[in-house]
Amino acid sequence: MTEKLQKTPITPATHTTPPAKFSHGVKKGNILQVAGQVGFGPAVAGQAPTPVGPSLREQTLQTLRNVQAVLEEGGASWEDAMMVRVYLTDTGHFAEFNEIYNEFFADLKEAPAARTTVYVGLPAGLLVEIDALAVLG
Amino acid sequence: MTEKLQKTPITPATHTTPPAKFSHGVKKGNILQVAGQVGFGPAVAGQAPTPVGPSLREQTLQTLRNVQAVLEEGGASWEDAMMVRVYLTDTGHFAEFNEIYNEFFADLKEAPAARTTVYVGLPAGLLVEIDALAVLG
Amino acid sequence: MTEKLQKTPITPATHTTPPAKFSHGVKKGNILQVAGQVGFGPAVAGQAPTPVGPSLREQTLQTLRNVQAVLEEGGASWEDAMMVRVYLTDTGHFAEFNEIYNEFFADLKEAPAARTTVYVGLPAGLLVEIDALAVLG
Repeated sequence: MTEKLQKTPITPATHTTPPAKFSHGVKKGNILQVAGQVGFGPAVAGQAPTPVGPSLREQTLQTLRNVQAVLEEGGASWEDAMMVRVYLTDTGHFAEFNEIYNEFFADLKEAPAARTTVYVGLPAGLLVEIDALAVLG
Repeated sequence: MTEKLQKTPITPATHTTPPAKFSHGVKKGNILQVAGQVGFGPAVAGQAPTPVGPSLREQTLQTLRNVQAVLEEGGASWEDAMMVRVYLTDTGHFAEFNEIYNEFFADLKEAPAARTTVYVGLPAGLLVEIDALAVLG
Repeated sequence: MTEKLQKTPITPATHTTPPAKFSHGVKKGNILQVAGQVGFGPAVAGQAPTPVGPSLREQTLQTLRNVQAVLEEGGASWEDAMMVRVYLTDTGHFAEFNEIYNEFFADLKEAPAARTTVYVGLPAGLLVEIDALAVLG
């Protein structure tokens, strides 16, 4: 007899409501998917989400924190992350992005996630978007 | 004793043959992956696939229907979708796309899938491409 | 009693060290994720990674070989691949890319993976990047 798997939405308290009918994260079985996160600061009631400072550093760190908030709300951590998809807007940002990424993951104990980095368009003001796939257990 | 998992291709009758050696969808274990779908209308024998009307609305709805056809052919539904990847060609389309997306998913009962939306290039005439990952069971 | 799943990094001998804290591949349970691969030739100690020849054909074949090396190092093969994400830089490359892709997969026995192809920016000199998700077993 197989137990019916439950699909659970993940909504950290720090996150603004998504701008459409999607979840910041969902978990089903041992799979946790984090939606594309950007550098929005913590949600403030009644205010539209705003990216933190204009620099790549500030936005990248906030974006990674936002991904992490979804992982943690779902009972996972970066140690469980299998894939990190990075969307930058400028190939000239690659070296600096990697420095920030390495600092952020300096204390990671298990193998770091795989990663793909590509250069796309993003809404005005956004320099980076990141999503992640985790396998728990 | 572990049962060997079978990898099954998924090809809805409405779909034209892919333009290369890939599957519109594949299922293995409880994982179902839907390939990038665009706004092609139902396949007509002997005719090249053509996107429906030029508007974002028409193409988005047809693209979502095409993703859904693969999910359903594989025994899944939108309720099982974990991640929806949206590729738009114009950041100016975001607001309208979200309206259409919300209408399409108005009746969804379980948590909506996570989503990432980025802006890329697509072949001439295409405004949107969407793929999806589902976990069944 | 559930066995704790191990997350294993995958690093083929042919591969240069990633330019940041990520893995060329990771495996956990029956999920194997291959990071974005490009057309770098086999690693040479003390040398920066360099893409093979300038043509789409050369880069595509090398990129596919690099993905395959990660799959194989992780105990998988293309037969296990569920999703192949293709990032090209020029919509004009689609037809030729598909020809090369079909040749490469001519001997595939099981259903080919699903695929999404989009057009993005990549670092100078790179024409194609590919990542893959596999389910083993």
